[in-house]
Amino acid sequence: MHVVDLNCDMGESFGAYKMGSDAEVLQYVTSANIACGFHAGDPATMRRTVKLALEHGVALGAHPGLQDLIGFGRRDMDLSPEEAYDLVVYQIGALLGFVKAEGARLQHVKAHGSLYNMAARHAGLAEAIAEAVYRVDPELVLFGLAGSELIRAGQKAGLQTASEVFSDRTYQADGSLTSRRLPDALITDDRQSVDQVIRMVKEGKVLSQQQVDVPIQADTICIHGDGIHAVAFAERIRRSLTEAGVLVQAVGAAKSE
Amino acid sequence: MHVVDLNCDMGESFGAYKMGSDAEVLQYVTSANIACGFHAGDPATMRRTVKLALEHGVALGAHPGLQDLIGFGRRDMDLSPEEAYDLVVYQIGALLGFVKAEGARLQHVKAHGSLYNMAARHAGLAEAIAEAVYRVDPELVLFGLAGSELIRAGQKAGLQTASEVFSDRTYQADGSLTSRRLPDALITDDRQSVDQVIRMVKEGKVLSQQQVDVPIQADTICIHGDGIHAVAFAERIRRSLTEAGVLVQAVGAAKSE
Amino acid sequence: MHVVDLNCDMGESFGAYKMGSDAEVLQYVTSANIACGFHAGDPATMRRTVKLALEHGVALGAHPGLQDLIGFGRRDMDLSPEEAYDLVVYQIGALLGFVKAEGARLQHVKAHGSLYNMAARHAGLAEAIAEAVYRVDPELVLFGLAGSELIRAGQKAGLQTASEVFSDRTYQADGSLTSRRLPDALITDDRQSVDQVIRMVKEGKVLSQQQVDVPIQADTICIHGDGIHAVAFAERIRRSLTEAGVLVQAVGAAKSE
Amino acid sequence: MHVVDLNCDMGESFGAYKMGSDAEVLQYVTSANIACGFHAGDPATMRRTVKLALEHGVALGAHPGLQDLIGFGRRDMDLSPEEAYDLVVYQIGALLGFVKAEGARLQHVKAHGSLYNMAARHAGLAEAIAEAVYRVDPELVLFGLAGSELIRAGQKAGLQTASEVFSDRTYQADGSLTSRRLPDALITDDRQSVDQVIRMVKEGKVLSQQQVDVPIQADTICIHGDGIHAVAFAERIRRSLTEAGVLVQAVGAAKSE
Repeated sequence: MHVVDLNCDMGESFGAYKMGSDAEVLQYVTSANIACGFHAGDPATMRRTVKLALEHGVALGAHPGLQDLIGFGRRDMDLSPEEAYDLVVYQIGALLGFVKAEGARLQHVKAHGSLYNMAARHAGLAEAIAEAVYRVDPELVLFGLAGSELIRAGQKAGLQTASEVFSDRTYQADGSLTSRRLPDALITDDRQSVDQVIRMVKEGKVLSQQQVDVPIQADTICIHGDGIHAVAFAERIRRSLTEAGVLVQAVGAAKSE
Repeated sequence: MHVVDLNCDMGESFGAYKMGSDAEVLQYVTSANIACGFHAGDPATMRRTVKLALEHGVALGAHPGLQDLIGFGRRDMDLSPEEAYDLVVYQIGALLGFVKAEGARLQHVKAHGSLYNMAARHAGLAEAIAEAVYRVDPELVLFGLAGSELIRAGQKAGLQTASEVFSDRTYQADGSLTSRRLPDALITDDRQSVDQVIRMVKEGKVLSQQQVDVPIQADTICIHGDGIHAVAFAERIRRSLTEAGVLVQAVGAAKSE
Repeated sequence: MHVVDLNCDMGESFGAYKMGSDAEVLQYVTSANIACGFHAGDPATMRRTVKLALEHGVALGAHPGLQDLIGFGRRDMDLSPEEAYDLVVYQIGALLGFVKAEGARLQHVKAHGSLYNMAARHAGLAEAIAEAVYRVDPELVLFGLAGSELIRAGQKAGLQTASEVFSDRTYQADGSLTSRRLPDALITDDRQSVDQVIRMVKEGKVLSQQQVDVPIQADTICIHGDGIHAVAFAERIRRSLTEAGVLVQAVGAAKSE
Repeated sequence: MHVVDLNCDMGESFGAYKMGSDAEVLQYVTSANIACGFHAGDPATMRRTVKLALEHGVALGAHPGLQDLIGFGRRDMDLSPEEAYDLVVYQIGALLGFVKAEGARLQHVKAHGSLYNMAARHAGLAEAIAEAVYRVDPELVLFGLAGSELIRAGQKAGLQTASEVFSDRTYQADGSLTSRRLPDALITDDRQSVDQVIRMVKEGKVLSQQQVDVPIQADTICIHGDGIHAVAFAERIRRSLTEAGVLVQAVGAAKSE
């Protein structure tokens, strides 16, 4: 049977500022990437989000980002591998505090925004992040872009990895995501999104913008929690996967059984 | 035999800013209170300080403070117990990341500056901090001012506590520290400091400013790591305690043997 | 003819986080208090808000707050008068940068949240804030709670002051606001809010919770920009004042004519 | 007569953290670049540094940097021109607050660290910074690396510019600084530093690493305020310039006379 994980970024509120529809989206996903206070999130939000995810039976993940709250961790920075290692250890640890306080288990780590993108391309950053995750807890699952340096680094470090695919992004013939600077980067039609995802999960293939099929590993699907449409799409993709005979469960589910 | 712990605040550098003489002071203390990035410290400093303390065989502690870098965590804030709980869980967790990454064990938690002082007086804050420590790890030792609400809250929560005394501060007849606003708050004579500390450890008493003896519990002695004089005083107090037949060891030493 | 100013806090978005309905509320108010990046706001938001206010012909004010983004400047802190002076000079200056860049004029300064409340009660803080405003520009108008230490300090410093009243708060027999901890602090009925405000402006009186009239100076009325109801209420209070024959204009309008 | 300005970065302390030897260096320089709270500095430090510079008769400049306190503004970031504009307006304004509060005049703006370096290379960033400076006050002098995009952008915007040279850096045949990644980037011999600077000022030439003379405009010389050696070198370079018949005065001196 085909199996896939559905993940979503969570806990991105900050102080008086609210973001996302965490409680609603948690009904449909199986893994929650919880912001750790650098690009978004704060201690109170982390506590609440951990509890909320546990109430919904959703697996917990740390979502470390660059220390750039004003840029929401989306601006590339000239970060050394050592700085990346330190950022990631700190933020996993901070979330682990709340996870331990609830007597729960941390399943995975998914880097945020620019940290995720830079680590997909740069082996040095990727290895530093993989080492950070491994040294904090070698049982953690490392999420990364399918085919990226981060997935390679995680495997090399001895971590379980989860190759991530995007439902709302188009792909190039080399398996990379179409750059957001190009006009055809985003899929705005829900049906097309769902069809692409189901094919990636069941056939291990995606049709690139060059109209050739590309092999792709789809362990976990990223959906977005922002915007009016997010909750409806989360519901639809979850239902469509189930109807297509795909088992939707957290990547660490087998391990913890 | 009389036993006492010697602790010092550490890891209070931040980015390009250096503070303290950690490497030197670590030669003489048995417990290190490591700043966690809120009032001072940053991820790189935390990693380095954890490693440095381990190299010196010094026990590791988290030193959480208020989120007030510019005020160095020394300005009282109107903090709710829930906010204190969240701050402490986050910061213990963050340090725990580095401790786990080094394959080491976290021994204790000591709140910093205003958080320490407010928790000494306010039962609500004290209980929130004790609960935070207990929920992250019930084996952690909670440091607090001897006779304070924080020590009471720690005991009530089921934590091992360590009552802290100060070598360079005078005491009042009710066992409290003389306010820093009063002219006789500080002991500037090293010999008097050392004598006061040895008497607290061996006799469980301190001579108050009112010239009456007050009973005091001295599990751990706080020394300062800043200033030209700090290293020389650390060496002197350590030597004097040993010469007086006092065994100087980390509060968690017995437990870990 | 009776004259009053209508003011509202603005520019409290931060990075990816949106807050308030500035563009809508600006249709009805005459003075905008623009956050300066400490309790809320950021450089881009400040630029946009200055431009937006100018487009609506609304007078510009700096809205400095405590350096506590996570607490939205609403948590009292143990701030020295010197620290308050520095905070206020810095933040007025930062906003002045954007005001000068648009070739415009800064009309007033209104402290935010805890800084406003602490300065209403403590003469030392009030005098430091008044001095900060005066030294940056003696032509600035200082907003403060009617009857507060801040108004007294502003007058003493030689500044034009604007005594502020609240449409949605009840008053005590001594002219102070009913504490938010008490059940009858807030007025939730719009008609009652409007009637209270019109009476304050036209008669200089407010009926206290003790059912006695209290004299009150109403130079400017604070309305809120948050919440679904904010825009509708802004429209209503503006219309009601006009219908009651009150001229609604910025406090600095006479001066600049 | 040959004339040159001597400038130094100042006011880079932060809260409890001290940096630099401002009071000593101010005896020898003619322009102070004062940090504005983003990469370094804080409101209290800004107030003190403005006063200290005024006491020494040293001209005041804003020294805006990236919002990266932990990296001291030295890590390149993917900043849009609009973000650069906003950062610079905000920080000039903040310093202007303190300058106005002392009844003084702001002479110049010099970007810090990565912002300075990125603006030297990228025309878009350079133009945004020049526009920010011009719109806040067209009388401000814009400092920039001699021959850089920033100098070109400043001239295009209609600003007075000051081309900056470095006493302790070597140059390439195209007039650029030797990259710090190369072994011969720094001049460590004081005499060689002084000789290079005097020749740049008097002859408008520098001997590049390729052993060919390169024309260079030297309006202002940057010296460093950090390190044990900084004060002695500041004294030496000031004395050597005077002995060589060079008039050392602030770039805005002529204008203000």
